[in-house]
Amino acid sequence: METKNLVISFAILYVVTGVAIGVGLYYAGYNADHSPAPKMDVFQQLQNEISADKISGYLKNLSSVPHLAGTAQDYEQAVWLHDNFVQSGLDRVVIVPYQVLLSYPNMTQPNIVRLLDDKGLANITTSGKQTPISQPEEFSELAAPNFNAYSGQTGLIESDGLVYAHYGQMEDFEYLESVGVNVSGKIVLARYGASFRANIVDLAQRKGAVGVLLYSDPKDFAKKGRNDIYPDSWWMPGMAVQSGTVYLGNGDPLTPFYPAVESAYRIPESEALLPSIAVQPIGYDEAELLLQAMGGPPAPDQWQGDLEPVYSLGPGFKYGDGWKLEMDMQTANKLVTTYNTIGMLYGQEEPDRYVLVGNHRDAWTLGALDPSSGTACMLEMARTFGKVKQDYNWRPRRSLIFCSWGAEEYGLIGSYEWVEEHAKVLSQRAVAYLNVDIAVEGNYSLWGSGAPLMNKVYLDSSKRIANPSADEVAQKRPTVFDTWVHRYPDANHPTKPKVNILGSGSDYTAFMHVLGVPAIDIRYTYEEDIGSYPLYHTLYETHHLLADIMDVGFLHHRAVTQLWAEVARNLLESVVLPLDPDWYATYLAEQVAGIQSRYGSQLEANNATMKYFQLAVTHFGEAVRHFQNTTLANLDTSDVLAVRRVNDQLMQLERHFIDPHGLPNRPEYNHIVFAPSSSDGYSSSSFSGLTDLLEAVGEQTIVQKPVEWAQIQQHLSVIAFYIEAAAKSLSDHI
Amino acid sequence: METKNLVISFAILYVVTGVAIGVGLYYAGYNADHSPAPKMDVFQQLQNEISADKISGYLKNLSSVPHLAGTAQDYEQAVWLHDNFVQSGLDRVVIVPYQVLLSYPNMTQPNIVRLLDDKGLANITTSGKQTPISQPEEFSELAAPNFNAYSGQTGLIESDGLVYAHYGQMEDFEYLESVGVNVSGKIVLARYGASFRANIVDLAQRKGAVGVLLYSDPKDFAKKGRNDIYPDSWWMPGMAVQSGTVYLGNGDPLTPFYPAVESAYRIPESEALLPSIAVQPIGYDEAELLLQAMGGPPAPDQWQGDLEPVYSLGPGFKYGDGWKLEMDMQTANKLVTTYNTIGMLYGQEEPDRYVLVGNHRDAWTLGALDPSSGTACMLEMARTFGKVKQDYNWRPRRSLIFCSWGAEEYGLIGSYEWVEEHAKVLSQRAVAYLNVDIAVEGNYSLWGSGAPLMNKVYLDSSKRIANPSADEVAQKRPTVFDTWVHRYPDANHPTKPKVNILGSGSDYTAFMHVLGVPAIDIRYTYEEDIGSYPLYHTLYETHHLLADIMDVGFLHHRAVTQLWAEVARNLLESVVLPLDPDWYATYLAEQVAGIQSRYGSQLEANNATMKYFQLAVTHFGEAVRHFQNTTLANLDTSDVLAVRRVNDQLMQLERHFIDPHGLPNRPEYNHIVFAPSSSDGYSSSSFSGLTDLLEAVGEQTIVQKPVEWAQIQQHLSVIAFYIEAAAKSLSDHI
Repeated sequence: METKNLVISFAILYVVTGVAIGVGLYYAGYNADHSPAPKMDVFQQLQNEISADKISGYLKNLSSVPHLAGTAQDYEQAVWLHDNFVQSGLDRVVIVPYQVLLSYPNMTQPNIVRLLDDKGLANITTSGKQTPISQPEEFSELAAPNFNAYSGQTGLIESDGLVYAHYGQMEDFEYLESVGVNVSGKIVLARYGASFRANIVDLAQRKGAVGVLLYSDPKDFAKKGRNDIYPDSWWMPGMAVQSGTVYLGNGDPLTPFYPAVESAYRIPESEALLPSIAVQPIGYDEAELLLQAMGGPPAPDQWQGDLEPVYSLGPGFKYGDGWKLEMDMQTANKLVTTYNTIGMLYGQEEPDRYVLVGNHRDAWTLGALDPSSGTACMLEMARTFGKVKQDYNWRPRRSLIFCSWGAEEYGLIGSYEWVEEHAKVLSQRAVAYLNVDIAVEGNYSLWGSGAPLMNKVYLDSSKRIANPSADEVAQKRPTVFDTWVHRYPDANHPTKPKVNILGSGSDYTAFMHVLGVPAIDIRYTYEEDIGSYPLYHTLYETHHLLADIMDVGFLHHRAVTQLWAEVARNLLESVVLPLDPDWYATYLAEQVAGIQSRYGSQLEANNATMKYFQLAVTHFGEAVRHFQNTTLANLDTSDVLAVRRVNDQLMQLERHFIDPHGLPNRPEYNHIVFAPSSSDGYSSSSFSGLTDLLEAVGEQTIVQKPVEWAQIQQHLSVIAFYIEAAAKSLSDHI
Repeated sequence: METKNLVISFAILYVVTGVAIGVGLYYAGYNADHSPAPKMDVFQQLQNEISADKISGYLKNLSSVPHLAGTAQDYEQAVWLHDNFVQSGLDRVVIVPYQVLLSYPNMTQPNIVRLLDDKGLANITTSGKQTPISQPEEFSELAAPNFNAYSGQTGLIESDGLVYAHYGQMEDFEYLESVGVNVSGKIVLARYGASFRANIVDLAQRKGAVGVLLYSDPKDFAKKGRNDIYPDSWWMPGMAVQSGTVYLGNGDPLTPFYPAVESAYRIPESEALLPSIAVQPIGYDEAELLLQAMGGPPAPDQWQGDLEPVYSLGPGFKYGDGWKLEMDMQTANKLVTTYNTIGMLYGQEEPDRYVLVGNHRDAWTLGALDPSSGTACMLEMARTFGKVKQDYNWRPRRSLIFCSWGAEEYGLIGSYEWVEEHAKVLSQRAVAYLNVDIAVEGNYSLWGSGAPLMNKVYLDSSKRIANPSADEVAQKRPTVFDTWVHRYPDANHPTKPKVNILGSGSDYTAFMHVLGVPAIDIRYTYEEDIGSYPLYHTLYETHHLLADIMDVGFLHHRAVTQLWAEVARNLLESVVLPLDPDWYATYLAEQVAGIQSRYGSQLEANNATMKYFQLAVTHFGEAVRHFQNTTLANLDTSDVLAVRRVNDQLMQLERHFIDPHGLPNRPEYNHIVFAPSSSDGYSSSSFSGLTDLLEAVGEQTIVQKPVEWAQIQQHLSVIAFYIEAAAKSLSDHI
């Protein structure tokens, strides 16, 4: 306790230092002509109020009980957030229900995998549960048995073969085919860590597999060996299991495009984008037993993990014919109610302009990191804004909306349904969406993702936040920004950190990719090159893991909250919105150059010209320069309607990239620049509507693939059109 | 001339009277709390400036030469409008080109229809052209031969039969089938007057016809007999021909959903929504010869027209076997450039809020009525606004945009392409669209169509416009409104005139049905119960027809211009937008009651509940009352941002009814309340997404048609959702 207090005292000093430094950078970054002098009092009050102890306290409460989406505990937390928001002084707090299709295991009859010998006797039997290790809450009877949501079949699934498919990516399945290992009719054993598990399952299903077993190899997730694991470190024990959805879509599977409100029409489950095969996660201790039993050719060197002995590809078992693998599955889909808790702090001057902050609430079990670390930060942020509002009779210029999403883990369901329900109003009024899912998954550096328009406000804000790491401060990196740019410099712009583009890993997806509301995602991350932190989605996401191992003193949580609040404050309070079309222009110019370089000659050779795409990006750059150098430079900031006009142009700019007709072959995504990667839902890609089509034609020409090349030509024209329209939207006439 | 001057003198008196009366009604209609005192000076200046003589002069010029879309004369008129707009003092005038697919006859080789005897000799041969009668401009060599645009086949089309199909509606084809007359492989002879000709052709094509001949029967269009026709009256001579498009879609056929800009991708013509069979219009003198030659059973009594002798159904010819009908067709599609002339008058306080007025410019030949009567009014309106701006250094609060559309006649092409190009900006900024196509097609009464939101501003404005008819004034009906409500009282609300809902007959379609920009259409119409004025789309739409027969003194033209200008002024100048959600609520309540009454028990019996639809309409009504009684009633009109906020809610209200996914089976229409009728593109319908589906299932139950009933259930939920969303948009929170 003493140590902790000491750290906190130090941290307060850093805040002051951080502010001082931040201010200089802040001023330097803004054009004094059309940006207000920062309301230092508001900034200061918000920053000072944010308490690491309070965050820890919130987290302790949130992670004390499993709170799987759609359960009583999840609803209790929705109510608890509601009550907290009310107590914080927010103006309007509501709990919004949606009836959606989720998926659950049987609490008393876990899903079991059995290896049966030629007499049908079980040789290996998985436990179906994770063993409690150290913290009392791990022993909760409410902890669900191991499962992957939306596993597609209930009952006994039997196969005479098991195939080891490495990370289960397209290249892995292609390799298996190349060496004559057919997964059709077999069960696939694949490792977590390289792509979104729903993509693994989708590929396995398309290849004809009847089931999928997923596990985390110690080579990725227990790198220090089986003796250096939770609860002593953050590494994964052998019976730990990563739960998770295997639904490839977003939002309620039964109400695509429309909200799952009471009046909703539901498509038949058979038409939903759900897997039809059985999927189950197992621990690496159990995976090891199965791998030991497997026959077939040895897996290539780079496929080998850290289990014993040498990994084989299968499909047969080495003990002889007649052995079978059996999945005894109870996971079933169920229509349940999920809840979003929405709290609104009305703006003073422009209550109809919304800055939204959001975090999901549901967890696979205790969810201390995913998502309760973020929930705790959001609660503290709400308390802080409410306190400053009450203490100083202050309101922000614009409205601030806190969103606690339900059922994110199943497929971003709560946020999607809400965005679908409020699509038009959000499109008309939302300035930005600021997401925190896992607030702290490490203490190495900020890991930032976001829309180019948000680049400046994100970076500028990070310059004003004191560095939570004493080591980093000692290295003369006093702000969050300093460590960020040091750890993750942008290769093309080394004086700034790399801001990743947004995939579909969290609740910003509907905002960014469907509506075109510029979004960011904030988290503190780890140094290791692994697909996720080792205990991701396991039973062992506990308060202990954060408080005693990953973020002693909760200083990184506080920094995330401070940064989140400061980005929000900046967007709420600036007279001219701090959205940055200039960076969007730079980004587009780099992207079009990259596409030209990679595909240009192939495109030209097939009558698909890049000319208008390039021209549009040039026009966009010119329009941005004119907007900044003329419109903004000459703006009379005392002219209320003139300010509103340019702010509307800035706010709406991202919307101009939204095609209501959707991307080619992906009508569910509407942003012509950004989309989740088609091959990995976690990743993001630029102009993937185009690059997906180009990947699909490969080396084939327009003579060989006229329909596909016509699609490419058409989509190129669509891209050019939307970029031109975005450019024109910055002018003062139609 | 003296008579004319006398009439004009009288009219000036009426203006003054009209104003006085109008003011009283105007005040009575508005809540003084949130409506500005009318700027009487602006109103007065605009009204007084508008000159009947100037309109006549503009019209004389416009109708002096054929100005078919895509021709040099059309472009010359686009430039002439440009120059006029510039001269009027508009701030920014541009000519916007689109390369689109139009259709033309051969100027030197007209389309000919021949009846060939059994030796192949022509017994009847049509002329393919209309004979000039009286006015010099009718003799222009630039007048196109008779044709229907997008006729689907070039060369010789031959058939051994001709079938008389009455008005060519679904019921007519069904009757033919019922009496065993098969049109497959035959040519269909159908009468204009009951539905949009593209629907006739579509039905004929679907029934297997190889060609269609269209004509106007004297029973409809020469009601006083062959001696009382143009140039002595407005009735149709025997060689007159109604040209017109037979394209069932809207916008450039090759660039659906996207604008036909330079970078556009074009679908192959074979994939466009164009007819594949030949279509040709003929005069009734020629139709009479063909009817005389026809055999087969006699047509029913109600199918008989005024030609001699008794109409038979066909398909054979009475002169014996071996006779054939031949269509010698030259009509062909061509990629050409069409032009919109767009003139903008910037607003003073809210330049980023647009009131758009529009009229198309292209005509089948001289087009004095369709559309040049409207073009002349628009030119006069632009001159008037420019004059008042210059004389008084005045600008409206919001921006006014004048739109002269190209290629409307071919399928609303100019307006669609422009709306597609500027869809987002219009959706964000457009207050309303005010259309005048044919300004004057009669002098009987105003014929108003429009969105319910526009009801109040339309009616209130009409109360301020002096009645152009001396007879009506003598009958104590001093304003345009008075005659309107007298001639066309709303059956359910007899103190107001019936405002028709919008179909797709003119350029409001893309605004209203695709974007959800509330629109109106203004015209003065005739008393007679005929599908169009007799000389519609013929060579004889001349200045003479209007100046000497239909609108002596151009007083009705002036009244249309005055009304158009006043509706625009009202929308431009009112501090709180004069859009009327209350009337929308009334309208929806009436519609839902009508649907419940007509289909309610059938729906319930098939598990398709009206409950949520009804509930949503109730919520909408409640939201409107709250908005009016609380939000607007308490609005501080000196709070600039508060006013902007409620105005944005009003402006965006119609947008909430727009489904980006389109109506069931009609993705090209997006408004869930309003759409053109599926069976007649000229007509409109309410909730036709629903009623079309219900018509399609007929008496069949969910057991017999599960897929169709699922569509009905789904669409009902979609309707309920959008109405609820519209209701919520009127609240001050999300």
